Amino acid sequence: MDYYFGVDVGGTNIKLGMFSESGRMLENWEIPTRGRNYTEVGKNDIMQNIAGEILYILEERCISRTKVRGVGIGVPGPVLDNGYVESCVNLGLTDINPSLVLSELLGGIPVTVGNDANVAALGEMWRGGGIGYQSLVLVTLGTGVGSGVILDGKIVYGAKGLGGEIGHIMVNPNETDICNCGGRGCLDQMASATGIVRNAGKILKDTSLPSVLRGMEGFTARDVVDAAKAGDPAALVTLDYCMQFLGKCLAAVSYVVDPQVFVIGGGVSAAGDFLIRIIQEHYEKHAILKKEKAKIVLAVMGNDAGYYGAARMAMDKKEERHAFLARTDGIYCDTAAIHGSGSGTN
Amino acid sequence: MDYYFGVDVGGTNIKLGMFSESGRMLENWEIPTRGRNYTEVGKNDIMQNIAGEILYILEERCISRTKVRGVGIGVPGPVLDNGYVESCVNLGLTDINPSLVLSELLGGIPVTVGNDANVAALGEMWRGGGIGYQSLVLVTLGTGVGSGVILDGKIVYGAKGLGGEIGHIMVNPNETDICNCGGRGCLDQMASATGIVRNAGKILKDTSLPSVLRGMEGFTARDVVDAAKAGDPAALVTLDYCMQFLGKCLAAVSYVVDPQVFVIGGGVSAAGDFLIRIIQEHYEKHAILKKEKAKIVLAVMGNDAGYYGAARMAMDKKEERHAFLARTDGIYCDTAAIHGSGSGTN
Repeated sequence: MDYYFGVDVGGTNIKLGMFSESGRMLENWEIPTRGRNYTEVGKNDIMQNIAGEILYILEERCISRTKVRGVGIGVPGPVLDNGYVESCVNLGLTDINPSLVLSELLGGIPVTVGNDANVAALGEMWRGGGIGYQSLVLVTLGTGVGSGVILDGKIVYGAKGLGGEIGHIMVNPNETDICNCGGRGCLDQMASATGIVRNAGKILKDTSLPSVLRGMEGFTARDVVDAAKAGDPAALVTLDYCMQFLGKCLAAVSYVVDPQVFVIGGGVSAAGDFLIRIIQEHYEKHAILKKEKAKIVLAVMGNDAGYYGAARMAMDKKEERHAFLARTDGIYCDTAAIHGSGSGTN
Repeated sequence: MDYYFGVDVGGTNIKLGMFSESGRMLENWEIPTRGRNYTEVGKNDIMQNIAGEILYILEERCISRTKVRGVGIGVPGPVLDNGYVESCVNLGLTDINPSLVLSELLGGIPVTVGNDANVAALGEMWRGGGIGYQSLVLVTLGTGVGSGVILDGKIVYGAKGLGGEIGHIMVNPNETDICNCGGRGCLDQMASATGIVRNAGKILKDTSLPSVLRGMEGFTARDVVDAAKAGDPAALVTLDYCMQFLGKCLAAVSYVVDPQVFVIGGGVSAAGDFLIRIIQEHYEKHAILKKEKAKIVLAVMGNDAGYYGAARMAMDKKEERHAFLARTDGIYCDTAAIHGSGSGTN
C-alpha cells in the first residue's frame, strides 16, 4: 500500500493526517507549531518539525519512505501556484517555497502547498459539506472571514495567491471603522465573530431594543447567536444586519464564478440551520439572475478540513503529473511517474 | 491543411471567421442574424443560417467537410458547460443545445458553444489586450456591462452558466432606480454607457457645476467622455463617480479569482487611457491586500473578439479531447481523435 500525508499549519498547532492511497484516513495527530525542534525563529523550523513527525511515524510503522506518494500542506497566507510563499505573518515564514524545503527534508517526497482556507475548501468538497460537488466556495466565519474557491475540483490560487480572499471585499460603504487590512466596510468587519460582537455593541448603543446582552460584560458571538435563537430582539437584529452583508457578498461571488454550493464553516457556523436560513434569505434576494439558486450548507469537518484537504491536494497533484506525462511522453506510465520522483534512501 | 470556424451570434448580425489549424484568420464576414433562410421564428433558423454559411464557403473554396476540426459559437445568454442554452431572450432561442443542432446540420463537425462575453474574453486573451496572460477578466462597457472570466486559459462557465456576470453585482446600495434585472445598484446601472448618461443627468440636476452637457439635448456617453477629456467639471465628476463603482467591483473580483489582468472593452472604452487611469486609481484604492496590483488594459479587438474567441474555444476543446483520450486510452493518437469524430459524407 502507498500513502499520502496532509498537514494543516496553524498559528498554534499543526495537524497531520496519514492517508492510504485510496484516501482512507489512517491516523491523525497534532503538535504545537513551535515544537521540540524549535530553537530560534527561522523559516525552516516549522518545516523541520513537520518532516520530523512524518519521518518518525514512517519509522514507527515500518513504512519505507518510497511508499509515500506525496505530502500536502496548508499554510495561513497567500500561496502562488508554484508553491511560493511571500509571507505568512502569523508564522514568521517569509520568502520560502515550503514544497522545496520540506521535500528536501523528506528525501525527495513530492510536496504540494496551498493556502489553508483553500485547502480546507478542498477538504469540505472531498469529505464534508460539499461532497458530490465540483465547484464550491467555503466561507469560514471565525475571528475573521476566510474563504476558498474550488472550480472544476481545483483550488483557484489566483495570480498572486489571493484567490478566495472574500473577507476583504468591501460590502458596506457606510462603515466608519477601519478593517485590519486598512480598508473600510470589508465583509470581515461585518460577518466574522468579531464583527458580530462589534455590531451588536453598536446596535445596543444606537437602539433601545431589549436584550439579555445588555447585562453581559464581554459577550461573545456565541452569546449573540444563542440570544437570537431564543428570540432576543437586539440579537436578532444584529444577526440579520451582519448576515445581510454575507448574503450580498455571496450573490456577488455567484456572479463571478457561479459555484454549485456555498459551504459555511468556522466558529459562528455552530449556529447551524438557524444561521443558514438567514444567509440564504439575503443571498436569494440579491442573486436575482440565478433562476436556480446555489445551495448554502454547513461545513461539517471543523478543524479536520485542513489536513484532509491538504492530503487531497497532494493526490490531485499526482494525477495532474500523470496527465501531463501522458500528454508529453505519449504513453501513460504509472511506474515511471511514481518512482521517478521519489529518490528515497529508505 | 485543416480548419476551424469561429461564430459570434449577436442580436443583429452574426460574425464568422475561418481559421487555419495553426490559428491564422483566413477570412471573415458577417450576415444578418435573421438571414436568407429565415421564414418564421423557430429555434433552428439561426443554426441553419450558420450551417448554410459554413457549408457554402467550404464548397466555394473546394474544402472537404472532413478538413474542419471544429466550430466554436458564442451566443448572448447563459451557457452550461455541456453547451445547453436555456434561453437567449434576444434571439428567441430557448431550450436548445446549439452544439448538437449545428453539429448535425454540419454532418458531424464538432461544435462548441459559449456565452458571447466569455468567448470575447478568450479572444482578447488570444490575440488582443490580454496576450501573454492565462487568467483575465474582460469587462465590456456598452449599453450594459458584460464580462467574461478566464482562469488557467479556460472560460469559467459557472454551474448554471452565470460565470462572469459581474454587471449585476450590487455595488451601490444607495441607488434608488431599478436595474433591468430587477435589482438595485448593479454595476450595470453605474458604469455602462446608459449608466454614464443617467448619472450625468442626475449630477447636472443636483449640482450647479458648469457643463457643456447642459446645452445638449439627448447627449451620449461619448459626449460625456469627450467633455471630461476637455476638462468639463460636471463630466469629470460623472466619470469619476461612475468609474469608482467599477474600480471597487474589480477589487472585489480580485478577491475572488485574482486575475493577472483586467481588459476593458465596449463602446465606452474608446475613451482610452484617460478612462483606464480613472478606473485604475479606484481599483488600487480598494485592492489593498494586493501588493502587486493587477494590470488594467484596453481591449483591442473590438467586434472581432467574439469570433476569434469562438474559434479558439473550438481549438481548446480539441486539445482537451486529446488529453482525455491520452488519459483514458493510454496512448496519444492524433489520427483517431480527428477522424473518429468527423463522419463527413463529402
